[in-house]
Amino acid sequence: METVDLTRIPVVDNHCHAIKPDQTFEDLASWRRAFTESADPGMPRDHVATTTFYRRLIRALASFFDCEPEEEAVFSARAAKDGRMLASALLHDANIDTLLLDTGFPPPEEALTVPEMGDIGGCRAEPMLRLEVLMESLLSEHGSLAETEAALSDALEDVRGQGYVALKSIVAYRTGLDVRQWPREEAEESFREYRKDAGAGSLRLAHKPLLDNLLRVAFAQASRQEVPVQFHVGYGDADTDLLLGNPLYLRAVLQHPDYRGMPVVLLHECYPYTRQGGYLAAVYENVYLDLSYGIPFLGYGEMLSFTRAALGVAPTSKLMYSSDGIGVPELHWMAAADGRRVLGEALGELVASGELGSAEAEAAGKSVLRDNARRLYRL
Amino acid sequence: METVDLTRIPVVDNHCHAIKPDQTFEDLASWRRAFTESADPGMPRDHVATTTFYRRLIRALASFFDCEPEEEAVFSARAAKDGRMLASALLHDANIDTLLLDTGFPPPEEALTVPEMGDIGGCRAEPMLRLEVLMESLLSEHGSLAETEAALSDALEDVRGQGYVALKSIVAYRTGLDVRQWPREEAEESFREYRKDAGAGSLRLAHKPLLDNLLRVAFAQASRQEVPVQFHVGYGDADTDLLLGNPLYLRAVLQHPDYRGMPVVLLHECYPYTRQGGYLAAVYENVYLDLSYGIPFLGYGEMLSFTRAALGVAPTSKLMYSSDGIGVPELHWMAAADGRRVLGEALGELVASGELGSAEAEAAGKSVLRDNARRLYRL
Amino acid sequence: METVDLTRIPVVDNHCHAIKPDQTFEDLASWRRAFTESADPGMPRDHVATTTFYRRLIRALASFFDCEPEEEAVFSARAAKDGRMLASALLHDANIDTLLLDTGFPPPEEALTVPEMGDIGGCRAEPMLRLEVLMESLLSEHGSLAETEAALSDALEDVRGQGYVALKSIVAYRTGLDVRQWPREEAEESFREYRKDAGAGSLRLAHKPLLDNLLRVAFAQASRQEVPVQFHVGYGDADTDLLLGNPLYLRAVLQHPDYRGMPVVLLHECYPYTRQGGYLAAVYENVYLDLSYGIPFLGYGEMLSFTRAALGVAPTSKLMYSSDGIGVPELHWMAAADGRRVLGEALGELVASGELGSAEAEAAGKSVLRDNARRLYRL
Repeated sequence: METVDLTRIPVVDNHCHAIKPDQTFEDLASWRRAFTESADPGMPRDHVATTTFYRRLIRALASFFDCEPEEEAVFSARAAKDGRMLASALLHDANIDTLLLDTGFPPPEEALTVPEMGDIGGCRAEPMLRLEVLMESLLSEHGSLAETEAALSDALEDVRGQGYVALKSIVAYRTGLDVRQWPREEAEESFREYRKDAGAGSLRLAHKPLLDNLLRVAFAQASRQEVPVQFHVGYGDADTDLLLGNPLYLRAVLQHPDYRGMPVVLLHECYPYTRQGGYLAAVYENVYLDLSYGIPFLGYGEMLSFTRAALGVAPTSKLMYSSDGIGVPELHWMAAADGRRVLGEALGELVASGELGSAEAEAAGKSVLRDNARRLYRL
Repeated sequence: METVDLTRIPVVDNHCHAIKPDQTFEDLASWRRAFTESADPGMPRDHVATTTFYRRLIRALASFFDCEPEEEAVFSARAAKDGRMLASALLHDANIDTLLLDTGFPPPEEALTVPEMGDIGGCRAEPMLRLEVLMESLLSEHGSLAETEAALSDALEDVRGQGYVALKSIVAYRTGLDVRQWPREEAEESFREYRKDAGAGSLRLAHKPLLDNLLRVAFAQASRQEVPVQFHVGYGDADTDLLLGNPLYLRAVLQHPDYRGMPVVLLHECYPYTRQGGYLAAVYENVYLDLSYGIPFLGYGEMLSFTRAALGVAPTSKLMYSSDGIGVPELHWMAAADGRRVLGEALGELVASGELGSAEAEAAGKSVLRDNARRLYRL
Repeated sequence: METVDLTRIPVVDNHCHAIKPDQTFEDLASWRRAFTESADPGMPRDHVATTTFYRRLIRALASFFDCEPEEEAVFSARAAKDGRMLASALLHDANIDTLLLDTGFPPPEEALTVPEMGDIGGCRAEPMLRLEVLMESLLSEHGSLAETEAALSDALEDVRGQGYVALKSIVAYRTGLDVRQWPREEAEESFREYRKDAGAGSLRLAHKPLLDNLLRVAFAQASRQEVPVQFHVGYGDADTDLLLGNPLYLRAVLQHPDYRGMPVVLLHECYPYTRQGGYLAAVYENVYLDLSYGIPFLGYGEMLSFTRAALGVAPTSKLMYSSDGIGVPELHWMAAADGRRVLGEALGELVASGELGSAEAEAAGKSVLRDNARRLYRL
């Protein structure tokens, strides 16, 4: 079967993170840690190397470094390079049009800045604002819920004017996607609890009535300005409760008339809830589905499987490529190649089944890899 | 690989709706609206045309009309036809044995009657009774819960004798599939709330204790008469909460000893919960799984995927073809062709893997397309 | 495409049950009952014979018996054999290295003992201890919750020393996988309720606070001794609530610091929640995913599908073969052949997609079929 050739299309990576260029890896296990969501020491030691994701990575890097397709050879070749040179080489090879960066993680002091990411990648780079980071900062500065709400609304008064192309929320990691309207007294009580915890040293905002309440302030601003909000959905580290990571929990937000102007981007293909995410993109005009080919760390067949599902249930005008690359440049790099290849194969199947002509399929591929994001984020 | 040729098998469409023959479409966007479950104006305007479902439809219709495989050409060819002539041509081309019609929607004043559907399609047409419509009607006529229950039981005393081949429930759209037994006082309170809402002009029955209670009356009748009850499950418009559309919520009903005589038909392959629906069909003798190839609006690969899953987990004697076609004849028509083709390909894979002989595969195809429904609905 | 040849690899069947060698089947329907999880008489009578699982079984057995690939011919050939001879022939043909037996079902008086299973199979056979059976036994002997807990802890003081290679829990069938810490008074009340029910003749432990509480005693012992605990997850008979059979409900147990030493084996590929189970195996170092090719009773394509998903999301070092065979030897036998074939095909796809070399793929196959279990269970 013919696949659709997308190998030369520059990508807009609509969700990724900065690279930490100066980290060195003392041994294989510490490098492998970059390729798992697990915090358990036994995973990089005993198991990461047996994932299909990692086997594919080794073979791809061996080809890039022109060395044996063995873990040790690749690791040695990598270690021989300067961190910034390596990042630059990989990002250039990835042929990236634009990187949209969630600067909420890794910590800024360890990572390249947004302009540095653009410089090193030879591409455009634009920041997104992580809402929970902003909220935690504002909570430390204001003495009441009403003041915090007002300050948040002010801070988000002109999101694009401040240089951000989108907002990002990790509420799925904190208190779940079922963002609700709470009685005022419960939100106030939640605010007091946060302040108590913060006073004891924990600034992490995981107080549901409070976080939900602040998110609603942010949604109102996003809706008014038609600024996209990205939500982490599905697969993540052990911090996330994957039962509550189902995108269908966003229903109350999506149904709310006040937020219909807010474009919602469901990240990471909602893995393993891709069909549920695609359904939302098919039913709500303002819902988009991100297809991430770096994280979750999947085999080629799984990536093909979620891509087929997404193409089968959601409009292609609602799908957007990303890597979710973070920390090391390998992720941004391999995802770009994998995304083009997987999407090209899945679109080739649509041509074979008689659903698309070749030119339509190629146009659909370009829209997913680049054009839909350009339009949605107004790049 | 060889596929099983089912192209000449007449189908029993075990779940569909009437056609509105006199509607005209002023522009492309208004016609596209027939091919989405979304109520948002942006969907037909910007996104429906990029679904694989719609691309496939355009190519199929272009072949039918013998015009260019372009949206505008197809739309023009369609507009040049008389509505009834077009419906007749498409339904005849679909080679339909019997249409089982849910007359609960579209509104009868806009749609063809059941006999008219049979006439226009050159096929048998049989009505099903939508329970919530009957309940809302009875609620407007009776002053107490007990009277309403008695009237409902009377109205369902002889379902087949009244000309219905099955009952249909959309409780998934209203209050969820977890139909429960409620304390009498809660059902009574729910009845009073409904009456109050009805008095204020809203006749929509979405009062859980009341609806559950009335459904139990209907289930008792269905069980006694062994009349199938079709349940909307899974994918639907934004009215449905897809989290609660999981067929596993029906467990309490399925386990209830009083309802074991009631054949239960899970509609729309429970998309995306096909494996869960297939599991129920594999474990409960009275559960059947409907495979709908019109709505949900899916790509060919997704239809193949749910068909494979259904064939892999449920007995083929429990699977039944449908289109869920509604409003426009394109859906009834394309689903018949797609269903035959997808099923033929999936059965061909079973022959290739050595699970079925060719004759067995063809017999299985006929049973899914026609014979299982004939037996279950006593056609 | 080339498949990886695993046909000669002996398997460790890491989860199965004993055979009842002396049962005879009076008719086809009674034999078919061995190949469904349904208790409904209509299933073996009308539907089991149309499952792809059963069609594949008939063809496989026809080849084994050298008879016509028809149900009656196979049934006759089977009936002509002595039960023990047949079991021995099938188990030897299956090329089994080791059987890990859950002796909790079928009842010991009807079934072969563990040594007899080894003798008849020409292989090693090791028992696992079903926790709920032990708990019910201890509950009948002790007058207080504290005494029962102490007795349970004593009974599990040296699991391997008593000859068991693992523990097994069917809490998913009883009260759900969300094992929690309960206030002491609720556990005590639950104990009293159990005693009352037991006094009335029902020894079945399905009292959530009590069962959860006793499981926590067992988990502490398992964790200290690093003894694997197998959990029934997903697909099962109608006793199970498949909504609560989702492995993600184990999160509280997996996150608990006291139980991190306890290897957790998620049985039956968590069907249909394979991706969820694979995710847990990718994120928690102590979680393993069992791939069972006998039960659930699936078609070849479904088995290929769950195998692809598991290989795509979890490390291959976390996957282990089983049959879940029970009662009749056909299940242990056919699963071994199917498992090798499916795994060989899925691994061949990884070679074709460039993720594994041929030697790596073969090594991965051996690890799943045999070596991972040898290491985990210390065989």
